[in-house]
Amino acid sequence: MSYIEELGTAAKKAETLMTSVSTKQKNDALKAIADSLIQNKEDIIKENKRDIENAKANGMTEALIDRLTLTEARIEGMSEGVRQVMELKDPINEIIGGEELPNGLKVEKIRVPLGVIGIIFESRPNVTVDAAALCLKSGNVCILRGGSDAIYSNKCLVNIMRAALSGAGIPEDAVQLVVDTSRAVAGELMKADKYIDVLIPRGGGGLIRSVRQNATIPVIQTGEGNCHVYVDRFADIDMAVNITDNAKTQRPSVCNAIETVLVHKDVAEQFYTALNAKWNGKVKIYGDETCAKFMQTERAATEEDYATEFNDYVLSVKTVSSLDEAIEHINKYGTKHSECIVTINMNNALKFQKCIDAAAVYVNASTRFTDGFEFGLGAEIGISTQKLHARGPMGLKELTTYKYLITGCGQIR
Amino acid sequence: MSYIEELGTAAKKAETLMTSVSTKQKNDALKAIADSLIQNKEDIIKENKRDIENAKANGMTEALIDRLTLTEARIEGMSEGVRQVMELKDPINEIIGGEELPNGLKVEKIRVPLGVIGIIFESRPNVTVDAAALCLKSGNVCILRGGSDAIYSNKCLVNIMRAALSGAGIPEDAVQLVVDTSRAVAGELMKADKYIDVLIPRGGGGLIRSVRQNATIPVIQTGEGNCHVYVDRFADIDMAVNITDNAKTQRPSVCNAIETVLVHKDVAEQFYTALNAKWNGKVKIYGDETCAKFMQTERAATEEDYATEFNDYVLSVKTVSSLDEAIEHINKYGTKHSECIVTINMNNALKFQKCIDAAAVYVNASTRFTDGFEFGLGAEIGISTQKLHARGPMGLKELTTYKYLITGCGQIR
Repeated sequence: MSYIEELGTAAKKAETLMTSVSTKQKNDALKAIADSLIQNKEDIIKENKRDIENAKANGMTEALIDRLTLTEARIEGMSEGVRQVMELKDPINEIIGGEELPNGLKVEKIRVPLGVIGIIFESRPNVTVDAAALCLKSGNVCILRGGSDAIYSNKCLVNIMRAALSGAGIPEDAVQLVVDTSRAVAGELMKADKYIDVLIPRGGGGLIRSVRQNATIPVIQTGEGNCHVYVDRFADIDMAVNITDNAKTQRPSVCNAIETVLVHKDVAEQFYTALNAKWNGKVKIYGDETCAKFMQTERAATEEDYATEFNDYVLSVKTVSSLDEAIEHINKYGTKHSECIVTINMNNALKFQKCIDAAAVYVNASTRFTDGFEFGLGAEIGISTQKLHARGPMGLKELTTYKYLITGCGQIR
Repeated sequence: MSYIEELGTAAKKAETLMTSVSTKQKNDALKAIADSLIQNKEDIIKENKRDIENAKANGMTEALIDRLTLTEARIEGMSEGVRQVMELKDPINEIIGGEELPNGLKVEKIRVPLGVIGIIFESRPNVTVDAAALCLKSGNVCILRGGSDAIYSNKCLVNIMRAALSGAGIPEDAVQLVVDTSRAVAGELMKADKYIDVLIPRGGGGLIRSVRQNATIPVIQTGEGNCHVYVDRFADIDMAVNITDNAKTQRPSVCNAIETVLVHKDVAEQFYTALNAKWNGKVKIYGDETCAKFMQTERAATEEDYATEFNDYVLSVKTVSSLDEAIEHINKYGTKHSECIVTINMNNALKFQKCIDAAAVYVNASTRFTDGFEFGLGAEIGISTQKLHARGPMGLKELTTYKYLITGCGQIR
């Protein structure tokens, strides 16, 4: 039996046992995890230091080391996150539909866990706890495969969580860590459809594409965000500048930040002049000729720029002749995440919302609102950019499926 | 541009145009398809004869030739099926959720088409019309890739449908046929994630596994049915015999027919004797020792038998010592389709429904009811045996996704 087969077999066993675990047990375990993270702060930081030292020796960039680092405050944040998940309503066993068929069969459609969820992510130890807590609350078993650079941190965190599970009478194999972080094992994991029901990659575009290419397990693709603001001919220019500023600069590294602004030619001068005054060089602009007349630009925007998620203080800008041109551009280059039109014209607003193919289509508001917490889901495992199963922010319900329970008294066809 | 890129580009264009097609236009097109199938009966049969002649020359089996054959009655059946789809409620643009967030943002969750659906199927020309009608009604664009043995029939049917679309002002590329049925093109189709949102294979286990292995597009897996009846210690034996008989023999070739009966040892003699009297050799039995004492059996059942979907008058039989043993067997060998317990004991019924991991879990009724029409969905594109997106019978709603429309007045974060 290979290593992945061992993990998979243990996960399947845990999955069956999870069917008789109560909401109280799950909440007890989550509380114990939250408490135990605080109690074991020092141990966690000690193990995390080993990862950081290795990372430095391997020449990891400052930004990535920052992502990898766990401080006391960050551990408290993780603990608080687990407590919030605990307080959410248990989605499992909700009756979401049903009827009595003409032949007297009673059909109930009830919400059940997806089963075994594989989560592949980069070297961000906070994801380890966050993902496990969401899977646990939604009755799922998880197999976590984090980046090799975070292995000591992850081992420590997963041990803490497994002990908490045991204490609540939940099989500890409901949370498992892939400790062999070799590429070969990751490849085997992506094809372990016998054991794993769903695979969720959490990370950059490269990781997601690799999973999509190699997995035989159904994948939920999350977090690629090439988002746009379109400033319509009928835009309130102040509002357009504020929304563009917020959507680009409030937190440029996240997926719901924008990467391109499309501006109707009739308001180009007005908008570019106002945005230039607001930013004064704060954001690097790849523009076109019209834009360059009224803004400080770095250079002309290329096709490649339009397809790039900068995740930085960088923005592509394009002047367009019509709403249709804007829609066409967005549907061509967008990643179906979040798109915005600024306009006071109702017809244009409706047309934009109808024709744009994205999870969240905004009129007169910043794309930064596409988020599980903002949408009131209470938590978020990621933002789906595919159309199958779930779209946009994914909370607990999006980690479930359903089954039909049919009860009769001898009915045959 | 490759052939698939051409089809894909045309499909994306049609997808955008579909956003402004009305329910009336879709219904007009469906009515025109239904009428046109009847009007062109002779042409269809003529083209179908070319396929049949080729199939005979290639030594195709009688059963497969029967599946391929279109008669006047079958064309009328197809036409009637299209008319039924026309009469179903349009699922698109339904508001399925929404609220006003504390900051005044209005959030609406609305039902939208999946987009472009690829359907890969075997040489059953009725699927061509059936799948296209369901995709059309749910606002989706489809790319149909049928078996090469049905190519003349499919070309003829797709031409009829495209003409009907045109007549209703719907882009004819909303329904496209892959006329190059080579393996290479099929392989390219499965990786065309740039153009296709979802891939649905319809056919046998081999086809489904091949798609699952090779596709980079999200797949909905349908129709593999290794289903079971468990005759509990507390079963009404007459009911158990009737349900077993119905679930096995009413239509053995379909996916919701059963392949194995599990029988509690305490009622084994009674049940086997009664079933033997009912069938008297009608069904070939692969049994165990206990079964062989009371029934005519062909031979002992093997591990491989338990994993096989016979789709024939063949049944594996196993005597078990407990409900737990039955549940474990089913969760090990089942394909998560439809499973049944026969019992009058409420605790056992509840435990079975809770612990069995399948789309439809029955108490005291035949598994043959797992069907879109029986469940009141009005139509069915297949029965999903995966957990992502949709489970069990898939009707029009299961061919949709949602998007969030967010309307504000300048909100920023």
